[in-house]
Amino acid sequence: MLTAEIIAIGSELLAPTRTDTNSLWLTEQLNRLGIDVKLKTIVGDDDARLEEAIRDAVKRSRVVITTGGLGPTEDDVTRKVAARALGRRLVLDDSVLREIRNRFAQYKLAMPERNSRQAMVIDGAEVLDNPNGSAPGLFIEHEGCAIALLPGPPREMKPMFEASVRPRLAEKSGDLRFARRVLRVAGMGESAIDEKIAPIYTRYQNPQTTILFNSSEVEIHLSAQARTEAAAEQLLDDLSEKLETELGDAVFAFRGETMEEVVGLRLSVSGFTLAIAESCTGGLVAQRLTDVAGSSKYFVEGVVAYSNAAKTRLLGVDPKLILSEGAVSASVAEAMAEGVRERAGTDFGLAVTGIAGPGGGTEEKPVGLVYIALADDAHTEHRKLSLPGDRHLVRWRASQAVLDLLRRRLI
Amino acid sequence: MLTAEIIAIGSELLAPTRTDTNSLWLTEQLNRLGIDVKLKTIVGDDDARLEEAIRDAVKRSRVVITTGGLGPTEDDVTRKVAARALGRRLVLDDSVLREIRNRFAQYKLAMPERNSRQAMVIDGAEVLDNPNGSAPGLFIEHEGCAIALLPGPPREMKPMFEASVRPRLAEKSGDLRFARRVLRVAGMGESAIDEKIAPIYTRYQNPQTTILFNSSEVEIHLSAQARTEAAAEQLLDDLSEKLETELGDAVFAFRGETMEEVVGLRLSVSGFTLAIAESCTGGLVAQRLTDVAGSSKYFVEGVVAYSNAAKTRLLGVDPKLILSEGAVSASVAEAMAEGVRERAGTDFGLAVTGIAGPGGGTEEKPVGLVYIALADDAHTEHRKLSLPGDRHLVRWRASQAVLDLLRRRLI
Repeated sequence: MLTAEIIAIGSELLAPTRTDTNSLWLTEQLNRLGIDVKLKTIVGDDDARLEEAIRDAVKRSRVVITTGGLGPTEDDVTRKVAARALGRRLVLDDSVLREIRNRFAQYKLAMPERNSRQAMVIDGAEVLDNPNGSAPGLFIEHEGCAIALLPGPPREMKPMFEASVRPRLAEKSGDLRFARRVLRVAGMGESAIDEKIAPIYTRYQNPQTTILFNSSEVEIHLSAQARTEAAAEQLLDDLSEKLETELGDAVFAFRGETMEEVVGLRLSVSGFTLAIAESCTGGLVAQRLTDVAGSSKYFVEGVVAYSNAAKTRLLGVDPKLILSEGAVSASVAEAMAEGVRERAGTDFGLAVTGIAGPGGGTEEKPVGLVYIALADDAHTEHRKLSLPGDRHLVRWRASQAVLDLLRRRLI
Repeated sequence: MLTAEIIAIGSELLAPTRTDTNSLWLTEQLNRLGIDVKLKTIVGDDDARLEEAIRDAVKRSRVVITTGGLGPTEDDVTRKVAARALGRRLVLDDSVLREIRNRFAQYKLAMPERNSRQAMVIDGAEVLDNPNGSAPGLFIEHEGCAIALLPGPPREMKPMFEASVRPRLAEKSGDLRFARRVLRVAGMGESAIDEKIAPIYTRYQNPQTTILFNSSEVEIHLSAQARTEAAAEQLLDDLSEKLETELGDAVFAFRGETMEEVVGLRLSVSGFTLAIAESCTGGLVAQRLTDVAGSSKYFVEGVVAYSNAAKTRLLGVDPKLILSEGAVSASVAEAMAEGVRERAGTDFGLAVTGIAGPGGGTEEKPVGLVYIALADDAHTEHRKLSLPGDRHLVRWRASQAVLDLLRRRLI
């Protein structure tokens, strides 16, 4: 099996509050190709250490990937230091320079002089196109080692790896193929899930199963290996089918999709439309729904009614109801869902009202109390939730729960 | 300033779903002692690579801390490999063996034979007590480098560092103390900023300056060292004042605050209220504003008007205007801002309309074209933006720009 090392470059990755996460995604991609990651290095703006890290990695491993340090500023040193570590010259590439200039021109900007630095290329390297940024990547074959220098921002790094690095590495890697899958679960806790499925997954060495808790979602990670990708996928199919039978509708995604993607797809194929009224989530549900490309097909409108007056004026909630039951109540949640649905003229209306904290809680209505509601033309339902966590987490979990309510209705 | 490296040991830390996090806590502890972390390594069950990692780190740095690999099993190789890297023998320490045996006896268990491995000590090392587990740590002074081998589980590693490593390092680190600060900038690119401030910050070795690009924001990280924390803060004050003079209002945060926190604080102290009408950002601006605790004081309502009908019904935008100018236009953005302000009865009305992509773009109105608008009782203004990036980034940058428009008005 081919061995790889990953070097993450940037002083900010050595701060107490941040670390490299690009390598997690890269590791998954490399594992799929049957390439084993043996070492990761995180290094800052320290030319000597970076040079040694690159030189050692190239000497020890068949694949070396660096991320970061390709920007236009003084402390973006990857190109320069990598050239030194490999004993190669750095040369100005006119076609890269032209492309960077064009990128700026596209936005009617003059290229700052320092961006020309990004057109410096290591002698003998192939230039990797960066459609999402100004820093091109580099790919070098050097004494039996394949070296890829990639940009740090994930939005630039990932597409570049997929388009330019993966095909080059696939050629070099051997027979074993890996496949992975992430099942996502809503409405069940980590231990409840494990109790149900441990008797199944512990019987398998291949695929391997890991249960992870990730903010409001429990994820079941499966990984399998076989001679072909299809055979590895078949192993995953068999096990995930068994897990699904046990967990039922609680599994909402089989390929790592987000809840908003799953709900969006169901709305899209069914032709139904949706409007949403939010209080404590403050636009988070609308934002998640509209983060999906093509959401204008089913998402019609959202109302963030923070004040009671807004709940009445924008959603037609009876002020007497707010007075008697309180803004955080089952009946106000239902009235919000019905109101937004009726005014927007959509098939479904969703609503969330609750206390996200840290202030605003009382003995009777504590922080974390949230009501969610769903209205269609036939009837309206609600759920009462007691959500643990801080403001951020309460809001996220409430948004997840209300989307899940709709998902289950759409099944 | 003392330099440190951290080596995290364990194959599980090289999986696609997990990584080392002990080093974040350790970095904070080291920074407080005035010790700078220059490199982190994550290595699995690979004796050769681990040996090289330890040998290189000891050669380059004054402090080296390893975590993990001290357990009783075959793949717990840290002791053995560290001894080899330092060229020292491994000797059985009778008193450690006795203590491990006692620990087991305490729970009326016989010590498994393999646990005797944990009593092997590197020649010349001090043994560090582990009250929370069976693996003792080791502390070695070797050719000017202080090396601590600590266990991997945080509940064993942290108390051991605090009780046994910190006091030893405090002696060596002397008097230096660290302070850090993050300035955030809006409305300027990374290179444009660097061009302006590089002539200033390159004159300073202390504080050190790093410019980072983090989704839509450029961050300037400053770190300073001095005899006291107050003196280090003073160095940061001096430099950040100079940078601010150069960059002006573009600097929106001096302590790493988010844009929504800065805007929220200004609204809060001034007593002004706000409503927002969003199209392409789909609730993102409202969500960011309401993510701040206490935002109900100034945030009154938000409207996500995705459809043209919603723009007219909820915001009073003249349908003829939408027909003649298009939903993505300066006049519709201004009408949305005025409409939401008037209906909500707030001091300010904000609006965003644009094409987030990937679909929906035309030659005349391409993906990334966004209009933002701000209305108060006296007048309404708009900005036309051409935002690069994918759907997610266009939305984020549009939300940042409209919040920045309000921030500059509030100055």
